[in-house]
Amino acid sequence: MAAATKRLLLAAAVALTLAAAGVSARRRPVRLLLYMHDIVGGPGQTSARLVRGPGPENPSMHPGNFFGDTVAVDDLLTSGPALGSEPLGRAQGTYMTGSMTDPVFVVSVTLMIKAGPYNGSTLVVAGRDDTSEPVRELAVVGGTGRLRRAAGHVLWSTAKVESPLHAVLELDVRASVPVPREARPVARASVSSE
Amino acid sequence: MAAATKRLLLAAAVALTLAAAGVSARRRPVRLLLYMHDIVGGPGQTSARLVRGPGPENPSMHPGNFFGDTVAVDDLLTSGPALGSEPLGRAQGTYMTGSMTDPVFVVSVTLMIKAGPYNGSTLVVAGRDDTSEPVRELAVVGGTGRLRRAAGHVLWSTAKVESPLHAVLELDVRASVPVPREARPVARASVSSE
Amino acid sequence: MAAATKRLLLAAAVALTLAAAGVSARRRPVRLLLYMHDIVGGPGQTSARLVRGPGPENPSMHPGNFFGDTVAVDDLLTSGPALGSEPLGRAQGTYMTGSMTDPVFVVSVTLMIKAGPYNGSTLVVAGRDDTSEPVRELAVVGGTGRLRRAAGHVLWSTAKVESPLHAVLELDVRASVPVPREARPVARASVSSE
Repeated sequence: MAAATKRLLLAAAVALTLAAAGVSARRRPVRLLLYMHDIVGGPGQTSARLVRGPGPENPSMHPGNFFGDTVAVDDLLTSGPALGSEPLGRAQGTYMTGSMTDPVFVVSVTLMIKAGPYNGSTLVVAGRDDTSEPVRELAVVGGTGRLRRAAGHVLWSTAKVESPLHAVLELDVRASVPVPREARPVARASVSSE
Repeated sequence: MAAATKRLLLAAAVALTLAAAGVSARRRPVRLLLYMHDIVGGPGQTSARLVRGPGPENPSMHPGNFFGDTVAVDDLLTSGPALGSEPLGRAQGTYMTGSMTDPVFVVSVTLMIKAGPYNGSTLVVAGRDDTSEPVRELAVVGGTGRLRRAAGHVLWSTAKVESPLHAVLELDVRASVPVPREARPVARASVSSE
Repeated sequence: MAAATKRLLLAAAVALTLAAAGVSARRRPVRLLLYMHDIVGGPGQTSARLVRGPGPENPSMHPGNFFGDTVAVDDLLTSGPALGSEPLGRAQGTYMTGSMTDPVFVVSVTLMIKAGPYNGSTLVVAGRDDTSEPVRELAVVGGTGRLRRAAGHVLWSTAKVESPLHAVLELDVRASVPVPREARPVARASVSSE
């Protein structure tokens, strides 16, 4: 091969490698399926009303629900909809009746994962749970541990209502996290002489 | 062309294509101009004090404002500063008097968009609204629907004060969202023989 | 060099440049070391209980701590653990006793930076502060000013307890922000003829 051609190919390979190295944006998907047990009273209670909202009473919800009602949660996360299925962590934070007219909660929780590859990691989730929709979408706004810089969404639905005091929510997490630079294969064009 | 040169160019083209495909980081801008009507009392009320703060009373604000005062909002978003302009959604969440001395609110709201190309999508916004500044900046920390993985900021200002009970805020959203991989043109070097 | 080879190399160089230009994902690290003075009573008080939680009383914490207890903070940030060291800003927001059994707070604060290169910028921090761990990790979910689109984490630890009313927290911020496109060198393969 001509020397100039080799030089050019070498330059292209170097540039390509630099471009690949400069990209800190490759992300890998994170999928988690969690069931959140919100037990607002009785035995095994995990959540409780923190603030009585100023109202008005929300006509789209059960009587006694007021705009602004805020509930603190320390809800168990499990692998299946049954309370006795494998425990996977806790959801801690609050939800508030966020509309005066519609059955909407504004949610702010941290999901603490206590099993599997993400044991010890957390996801921060925020957004709007409009219970008039069969499947709602909330935002994953961050994370820690092996879930650092997580971003994505949660498909949030009511899996079942065990009792008036025990709702089971399905949290289908669809997020991604950056792939650390060192873990990435670098695209490289090998240059050999003829 | 020599066989080795062709082989090298092919390798370079493949590597380049792989590198481009690995990049999930291309983003497209999202601009939204919204007017938020915060009506804290009287007819058409959309927000209400949720918690009376422990104080002290904040000397930089109207008398009766205490550190910690928290307001729940279900505020209408419109296309213009007039309450009667096109409705675009709701802002739901809270703001709290976050300073003991300065006229600062700590804001946490989800913007639900109900019109236009982002109908059904949400943005999660958080941060600090220092009303002593003409234009404040809050963070867009996430989103859902067509605004999944949104990140950016909101230029937040007081458009006008209709009455002591009705403030109109201008929210100039400057965010971006990732371009889905399938929607991206892939850089490709064509390889042909002479 | 053969014309076809030159043409191919030119195509490769152009594609490479386009690929590099399309990457909006390069990020630069942001490191901040801040000490947060949480003074819950007495002279110089900067935080106060906002809501008495519904309980139960948390057995892992000091007596009188109830699940749901929520504290509003307007805490000073300094450069060192001493209250008299250089002031760097304020942490404003809330923390809530987020567990019924463990010494855990759910934290939501905006860090307002008032000195140095990030003067006027903010970071939004959220997550879980499990005080049974020597070092906890919270998420950086966004930012403003020169910290727009910040993402990362905070290594959060108790630096010292000055008194029962004055805790000093160390916040070791490890985040990154996108490098604006114009600030980035573009990888480029030069193409010359023989």
